[in-house]
Amino acid sequence: MTSFTVDLNADFGEGFGAYSFGQDEALLPYVTSVNIACGWHAGDPHTMREAVARSIAAGVQIGAHPGLPDRLGFGRREMAISPQAAYDYTLYQVGALQAFVHAAGGQLAHVKPHGALYHMANSSREIAAAISRAIHTLDSKLLLYGQSGSLLLEAGHAEGLRVVSETFADRTYQPNGKLTPRSQPNAMLDQTESAIAQAISMVCRSKAMTADGGEAPVVADTICLHGDGLHAAQWAKAIREALETANVRIQPPSN
Amino acid sequence: MTSFTVDLNADFGEGFGAYSFGQDEALLPYVTSVNIACGWHAGDPHTMREAVARSIAAGVQIGAHPGLPDRLGFGRREMAISPQAAYDYTLYQVGALQAFVHAAGGQLAHVKPHGALYHMANSSREIAAAISRAIHTLDSKLLLYGQSGSLLLEAGHAEGLRVVSETFADRTYQPNGKLTPRSQPNAMLDQTESAIAQAISMVCRSKAMTADGGEAPVVADTICLHGDGLHAAQWAKAIREALETANVRIQPPSN
Amino acid sequence: MTSFTVDLNADFGEGFGAYSFGQDEALLPYVTSVNIACGWHAGDPHTMREAVARSIAAGVQIGAHPGLPDRLGFGRREMAISPQAAYDYTLYQVGALQAFVHAAGGQLAHVKPHGALYHMANSSREIAAAISRAIHTLDSKLLLYGQSGSLLLEAGHAEGLRVVSETFADRTYQPNGKLTPRSQPNAMLDQTESAIAQAISMVCRSKAMTADGGEAPVVADTICLHGDGLHAAQWAKAIREALETANVRIQPPSN
Amino acid sequence: MTSFTVDLNADFGEGFGAYSFGQDEALLPYVTSVNIACGWHAGDPHTMREAVARSIAAGVQIGAHPGLPDRLGFGRREMAISPQAAYDYTLYQVGALQAFVHAAGGQLAHVKPHGALYHMANSSREIAAAISRAIHTLDSKLLLYGQSGSLLLEAGHAEGLRVVSETFADRTYQPNGKLTPRSQPNAMLDQTESAIAQAISMVCRSKAMTADGGEAPVVADTICLHGDGLHAAQWAKAIREALETANVRIQPPSN
Repeated sequence: MTSFTVDLNADFGEGFGAYSFGQDEALLPYVTSVNIACGWHAGDPHTMREAVARSIAAGVQIGAHPGLPDRLGFGRREMAISPQAAYDYTLYQVGALQAFVHAAGGQLAHVKPHGALYHMANSSREIAAAISRAIHTLDSKLLLYGQSGSLLLEAGHAEGLRVVSETFADRTYQPNGKLTPRSQPNAMLDQTESAIAQAISMVCRSKAMTADGGEAPVVADTICLHGDGLHAAQWAKAIREALETANVRIQPPSN
Repeated sequence: MTSFTVDLNADFGEGFGAYSFGQDEALLPYVTSVNIACGWHAGDPHTMREAVARSIAAGVQIGAHPGLPDRLGFGRREMAISPQAAYDYTLYQVGALQAFVHAAGGQLAHVKPHGALYHMANSSREIAAAISRAIHTLDSKLLLYGQSGSLLLEAGHAEGLRVVSETFADRTYQPNGKLTPRSQPNAMLDQTESAIAQAISMVCRSKAMTADGGEAPVVADTICLHGDGLHAAQWAKAIREALETANVRIQPPSN
Repeated sequence: MTSFTVDLNADFGEGFGAYSFGQDEALLPYVTSVNIACGWHAGDPHTMREAVARSIAAGVQIGAHPGLPDRLGFGRREMAISPQAAYDYTLYQVGALQAFVHAAGGQLAHVKPHGALYHMANSSREIAAAISRAIHTLDSKLLLYGQSGSLLLEAGHAEGLRVVSETFADRTYQPNGKLTPRSQPNAMLDQTESAIAQAISMVCRSKAMTADGGEAPVVADTICLHGDGLHAAQWAKAIREALETANVRIQPPSN
Repeated sequence: MTSFTVDLNADFGEGFGAYSFGQDEALLPYVTSVNIACGWHAGDPHTMREAVARSIAAGVQIGAHPGLPDRLGFGRREMAISPQAAYDYTLYQVGALQAFVHAAGGQLAHVKPHGALYHMANSSREIAAAISRAIHTLDSKLLLYGQSGSLLLEAGHAEGLRVVSETFADRTYQPNGKLTPRSQPNAMLDQTESAIAQAISMVCRSKAMTADGGEAPVVADTICLHGDGLHAAQWAKAIREALETANVRIQPPSN
């Protein structure tokens, strides 16, 4: 009998100063790894310290979630930064988070770029390579989370990093294994049942549903659980329980 | 024959984006340690990477120079931050710089708070303790630079850090060993000859001149060379050469 | 029969980027004037445009709410800024908001400094004068909101501005008319009934209750309704209805 | 006898906090209009106040120079902002500068977007329209400076603004009237003589030289003088004197 495993990750610690964001506490029971904002697109030294402490207390794997220098846009808007800047910004942010993790007696395990930086690393080989090199230079044992089929995973692998292929249970995929753009019909799987089916298929069959009901190849080492919707925790709980019912082992990739 | 040694330090890498600042290159030949801005009061990931590379190439000791979150004020204005914030801000900034130092194959040796944070650590025992704790938690072998006779050195020592007592050659001191406030007459030693005499006296006799020509006790493990005046390099050269002529050994404190 | 009037004001538009803050919509029915954040301690061009539109739609008086350059601390931490900086920062922020008000066909009616800037203007005559001068220079018809009995109101009056004296229904006052510091016992009036009694007494008798049950002189041209507590709207509604029941006319000061 | 006139403009007030930038003072004698940074890509309330005062003292026409929220990149990197954001950011920054101009008793005359915002307005009709609408809404008498032949000038004209067509003396143009991209050969006219010839041809014949020595149609209502090169002032002086020698009248467009 083949046994399947998957990591469930969520973005974490994305508040700032007087502002809170998302539903960190509600999601924490359902994830096995978190991506902690590093003070650029979101987060600050206070939220980072707290997020690290909560992650350690909950026993989830800790990752850094570096983003673009665009707090006003929450790091969601592409910026024409140079590959060198992508390297520098990654190193800065991961280093800062690493200090909090070390201070708390924990271990930084992975890096997942945020928002527009994540997407830019899918379409620019130079940005993807720069991010990978920054991570590898800092600590070659860090895992790199990137989108299934992305240039980022390619670049990370080429750099010598162990890569973790990420999928989204609430999205359909194109036949080439890339996400269906949100602007197209059937890009989103709004029904929890559809998302559950997508999750199980991706993990157990390495196949995702396309927008027109066909199949696309994906690698689902981890599934991203969104933290900022109204029913985020409910949805996360449903996905996790369905995966467990399907005998999928839920654990972080480094185990 | 007794031999004296002293470190000569300067702030470094305080540009930002399109802006340059100070005379890093011109000062580098005369210092034995540098304090690199960490992206808050000044500096950014690009300047940090470059400053680290230059420091390593020049063979000077590398320190972190964390400051207040006040880029507009260059970190020179006191802010009513909590001790916890002082801890968090220090950890964040030192961690970020540490990543660049490690990536370059170097070694972070010390931390010197910048501007208003440095001064606040002289008058608040809580801020001084918080900064010391952040440094010690991150790496107990890091040296802490602080003003001669300051609460910061006391707190660092209590925390278990090796502390480095800093003096200023172009300033007079009060009989209690603290700096004469700039608002008072004879606070500054504008003449290079006076500064040289002050430097040699502080290093070789542990005595500084007071505003009225008396003597004050100081410990001069390191002397701060300013980098942003018109004649900064000339002045630094004069101080260094005079110390060498007086048979003082110029070397970083960790040697 | 004497008739009393009072303005009820609340801070407004204090979100930022992806972050929301307070309960703007819920409070709006109960206030007659709002203080809109200007993009420094909180707010951004988007929130400013929206807050202005909502204020005009609701028919409430619009004010600018400039703060310190400390988004991380929500403008709540005192900073050692110069009076010239207080002038410059006020002018910048009020000018920016004014553009949105003019673009929407509205009228900017008042300025109320935020947080630490408000408090600094209570204790520094120079800061108070600088803020007043900035407002008067921009538009001499702008009203200045300041704490009852404060240096800010004095300075504004001396500058030639019409000033609006602000009080807090959930706070007790010292015999000299200043707020009881939060660190002291009985500084807060936690019970809605006590706050209602305080509000009515301040408006109709120009007397506020002190921490020990005595009386202090205050001028209550306006009462500040907090927007960020759990029961903010409920509390605002209770205060407003009690004032109306006591035949107090609720209207903005410029009417 | 036909008489030609042209405006000479330069960016102005692009320092920040402790940082200075460019050669404002040296250029001022040669320009007839300045574009003052508004505190986003560069500038701050202090530099804005000073730049306004110097401009008024020198008798040059004052314009606002709004940029992207990217101080780290000096507003030179394109960002995927929405047209609504372009509208909001323009209104905010122009309003802030307007306050300083009014406070100094001056008159804001024009707006010229900075860097990447200027370029984005050349390639996106929506961004161009949003910027134009923001300016028109604030003050329909403001002039809009934009690149010769650009979508921005088209959009400004459609919005009802009076537009000012800008050219660059140190650049060649493509046959369609657009700038030769810097990545192509002969994009720059490095020799002062070539720049002078280009300036005179653009102003007096509405023709610019192309990279291969041909001619392109341009409208030269204003010529941009760069402020941040080594020989900026020398170069500006040479261009101005050559134009005057050619009997071109140098004056701001609103005269």
